[in-house]
Amino acid sequence: MQYPDAIAKLIESYSKLPGIGRKTATRLAFYTLGMSEEDVSNFSESLKASKSDLTFCQVCGFITSKSDNPCVICSDPSRDQSKIFVVEDSQDEMAIESTHDYHGLYHVLNGVLSPMAGRGPEDINVSSLITRLSDHPEVKEVIIGLNASTEGEATTLYLGRLIKPAGIKVTRLALGLSMGTNVNYADQLTLTQAVNGRTEI
Amino acid sequence: MQYPDAIAKLIESYSKLPGIGRKTATRLAFYTLGMSEEDVSNFSESLKASKSDLTFCQVCGFITSKSDNPCVICSDPSRDQSKIFVVEDSQDEMAIESTHDYHGLYHVLNGVLSPMAGRGPEDINVSSLITRLSDHPEVKEVIIGLNASTEGEATTLYLGRLIKPAGIKVTRLALGLSMGTNVNYADQLTLTQAVNGRTEI
Repeated sequence: MQYPDAIAKLIESYSKLPGIGRKTATRLAFYTLGMSEEDVSNFSESLKASKSDLTFCQVCGFITSKSDNPCVICSDPSRDQSKIFVVEDSQDEMAIESTHDYHGLYHVLNGVLSPMAGRGPEDINVSSLITRLSDHPEVKEVIIGLNASTEGEATTLYLGRLIKPAGIKVTRLALGLSMGTNVNYADQLTLTQAVNGRTEI
Repeated sequence: MQYPDAIAKLIESYSKLPGIGRKTATRLAFYTLGMSEEDVSNFSESLKASKSDLTFCQVCGFITSKSDNPCVICSDPSRDQSKIFVVEDSQDEMAIESTHDYHGLYHVLNGVLSPMAGRGPEDINVSSLITRLSDHPEVKEVIIGLNASTEGEATTLYLGRLIKPAGIKVTRLALGLSMGTNVNYADQLTLTQAVNGRTEI
């Protein structure tokens, strides 16, 4: 015997999400049956809208609604136009925004260089960054905030070599101990970076 | 700054699911953006259908599509009409069906008695079971297959007392060792049940 079509299809859809297996998908589907009409209809509509209403900002590559293109940050004149923060994806941009400590502009690569995955500079938003820098001489600093992984490192070095010759200051996020880390629990590489990057107090 | 409306709403919807917090919801929402148009539209449609196309079988309480009421099992004359298997919910019925070993009918309580949660016999499908039994004298055995929990036990005993006076055989699932369990890892209660319920070989 099979579940009725409507629930079988819902289980199928849930199980396509990452990290959700058949059992969890079934649990979620039955939970959905018990949700309010309004919640389910909102869910259904927002799924549709995620495909029809969203696009990438034509300037910075951040995820934005089609009616806000360029995105809210790119079209906000109060942001510091002399700084561009380069991130891997929109979620990283939101993480930086959540610190409320940075007030410049962003550029979202939507990926990093990865020879293993066959992803080169033409597959990520690099050329748009270069065009943007040459069109906007008011940019004085490019801050690179990619993941501290092999691919992030490679992309950071690549961007540095590409941008520095234009006479623009290129900085990167500090490497060192995370807040709350014990020195004797930190890995060797992190400790080396923390020692090399030590700051005067 | 906030995410564009379409994605903020999608994150909101995902985070209403059980066991899914804000971070996972955000991850799922961004994953959704990368899914194929077809998958997302199927997902959206099946959510809507789960509210509009599904109902409980008027006979047994199993989840069924509105066009199949009574459900496929209740309307299948080849099923053994002399047995009714009582389960807590539709997922339990599917678990029994997956053994391919039982060919009778079912009755889904859609809940168990729970004084703690203020759930009495009138809140679960008990009266429909009693009516069904009196309308169908061909039923010779009621098998109670509820969870081996306090609430499941209480409901099992309650149903037994209610049905036995009508002269119908009432059985329950065997309690004992799960397949693959070591005797010295089994808990005391399970061991006691296994000893009391020992069978001749």
